[in-house]
Amino acid sequence: MREVYVAGIGITSFTRLEYPLVEIAAYPGLMALRDSGLKKIDQLYVANMGSGRVNAQTGLASAVVDHLSLTPAGAVTIENGPASGASAIKEGFMAIASGMHDVVMVIGAERMREVNQLEATDFVATLTHPLAEYIYGVTLPSLAGMFARLYMEKYGVTSRHLAMVAVKNHHNAMDNFYAHLHEEITLEGILDSPEASTNNPYVADPLRFYDMCPVSDGGACLILTTAEVMKKINKPMIRIAGIGQATDTHAVHERKDPTDLLAVREAARQSFEMAKVKPQDVDVAELHDAFTILEIAESEEVGFFKKGEGHIALEKGETKIGGKIPINPSGGLKAKGHPVGATGVGQAHEIVLQLRGEAKKRQMQNAKIGFTCNFGGFGNNVVCLTFIKEK
Amino acid sequence: MREVYVAGIGITSFTRLEYPLVEIAAYPGLMALRDSGLKKIDQLYVANMGSGRVNAQTGLASAVVDHLSLTPAGAVTIENGPASGASAIKEGFMAIASGMHDVVMVIGAERMREVNQLEATDFVATLTHPLAEYIYGVTLPSLAGMFARLYMEKYGVTSRHLAMVAVKNHHNAMDNFYAHLHEEITLEGILDSPEASTNNPYVADPLRFYDMCPVSDGGACLILTTAEVMKKINKPMIRIAGIGQATDTHAVHERKDPTDLLAVREAARQSFEMAKVKPQDVDVAELHDAFTILEIAESEEVGFFKKGEGHIALEKGETKIGGKIPINPSGGLKAKGHPVGATGVGQAHEIVLQLRGEAKKRQMQNAKIGFTCNFGGFGNNVVCLTFIKEK
Repeated sequence: MREVYVAGIGITSFTRLEYPLVEIAAYPGLMALRDSGLKKIDQLYVANMGSGRVNAQTGLASAVVDHLSLTPAGAVTIENGPASGASAIKEGFMAIASGMHDVVMVIGAERMREVNQLEATDFVATLTHPLAEYIYGVTLPSLAGMFARLYMEKYGVTSRHLAMVAVKNHHNAMDNFYAHLHEEITLEGILDSPEASTNNPYVADPLRFYDMCPVSDGGACLILTTAEVMKKINKPMIRIAGIGQATDTHAVHERKDPTDLLAVREAARQSFEMAKVKPQDVDVAELHDAFTILEIAESEEVGFFKKGEGHIALEKGETKIGGKIPINPSGGLKAKGHPVGATGVGQAHEIVLQLRGEAKKRQMQNAKIGFTCNFGGFGNNVVCLTFIKEK
Repeated sequence: MREVYVAGIGITSFTRLEYPLVEIAAYPGLMALRDSGLKKIDQLYVANMGSGRVNAQTGLASAVVDHLSLTPAGAVTIENGPASGASAIKEGFMAIASGMHDVVMVIGAERMREVNQLEATDFVATLTHPLAEYIYGVTLPSLAGMFARLYMEKYGVTSRHLAMVAVKNHHNAMDNFYAHLHEEITLEGILDSPEASTNNPYVADPLRFYDMCPVSDGGACLILTTAEVMKKINKPMIRIAGIGQATDTHAVHERKDPTDLLAVREAARQSFEMAKVKPQDVDVAELHDAFTILEIAESEEVGFFKKGEGHIALEKGETKIGGKIPINPSGGLKAKGHPVGATGVGQAHEIVLQLRGEAKKRQMQNAKIGFTCNFGGFGNNVVCLTFIKEK
């Protein structure tokens, strides 16, 4: 298996973007070409979840490869719910590892603010079980609310812990130009003050407004290549060292213990095993905090903390930038934003910045090993990536 | 690069199916597991074009892997317009070739008769250029009509030649249990008789009703694996020897000569080069005849006949079963049917049957090399596969 490196990266602001989807996808592609110094690619992957439903567009990758004047390179769209981004990186990895292609562009892009909030919530709900969940009106916030309640009862997590995740990630996003939300929040403001009940209303009890990620448009890109091509360009040697992917029952209620995220556990295990590192070796991580409770749960399942102790580590500040294992220095889905198909590529973008030492004010010093967890469905399809900086 | 073989195959009837999409996808998966004798897979690809738009479902692969009780295997949905099927086979190939996975299931599935004919036509039109074609009301039949007219003027193809493709493919489908249309047609009936104008009305001049493929539901599956696993199961050694993929301008009107299908030419060239065979070595082929004119044009672009001479070879009967190079023994998209995301996998299914010698009445004797052309967009994204039967 050939080794695979990140040659170039690009990103748009995650926010409301008034550009056509094809341009939201193309822009970070151009940035990544410029970053890498490369001018040609062999294959394009576009990760996207909603173009068919939200944007009346199929074959998106064909439009993007043409828009970037990169024909006749092959192109394909990868749809894997909110895990589309990291899934596309996995496909790009294998395209190079197999020897089929030498330079692969992986773009994640979504334009989901084209529709109103209610339609966007329904669109995201289409990833739930079509026969056992969706038709009964389940939404992702409702699943997350029930999950949070179980987690609180079983492990002693409180609303205060959830709010701490939000406060930390909003704070991190203040230093991320590309983040959706630039708004410093406090426990006082969203939890303790008399205004909290209006500032931060309940959405899906026990989850409140500030426990939810925003609905974002946005795109991100990674260009992947071989060790040989890397020698010709002057970029840091960031290697994709580990990839894990696992699925779980599609319907959440079919799981023995819904607080166990088995697909996260298995995908992380595979990724670390392939990279030959341990969770404790990781210097910086981006986890999939579409809801605040998920950051806590994932930080345990991937192995950073013991099961049921993620909220304690959070309380101690171990997941802050400069802490034992900084989680979501970018602001995470919570504050950086969550353009669903782009998110996994956006997570990888942040880790590459951190390992290159280009993360500016939010830089984790001397980061050498980075990790991402891209969580699809409600934990039914998860992809974890491990990145290592080589000398 | 590890070599990749077809361990098992499965298919549903291509027709109107009153089952949920997840079951249309799962059924051929079960058939293929049974055919191969394998019980476990490492990774699932589901090729599908319309689930988001037509079926209000995203993350389809996650639902299918669970429905088949194949968790925790990784799963991902591949969307590449009508070329989704062969694109998914390419991804499955690389997953094995790279060494990442040993057993990969590739399913193509579509349920597009859920909506009415007009909505289905609009849904397929979403693959055209979003800014330069779709918003002006272009549909696939309209593009094909204009393409056919140019082809007629430049190369002397007539309506009679187009009808000959339909007659041949309807005839072939008579012996295919899984085909959508079991209806023998004649030149007399659809062209010469006084009833032809009502039997076979114009849809997009010069294309008539019988120049169009039907709108079908359906699914197909291939299980791919390594030479090592093949030794443990008693199945013919059908190897995926060549894969080519190429893109062209997304908008048809931007091409110098729209009758040149450059992506078909390039994808076929790559596929033959990788397989180390020539177009003339091919014993049996499935081409993407969504419109009759496309079978003629593709038969030239892939190299079976000189440019402009496909209709002459057709006239001579060279593309019939038993002819020089039988094209679409399955009935093709024209009569077997065209559940868009499933089509490329369905084409490969037929070639595997032919190379195994399991195609019954429509068997091409001693077929050793097979070929498929899966045509996405209006020629903007094409995947060609070459299969070789080993001893």
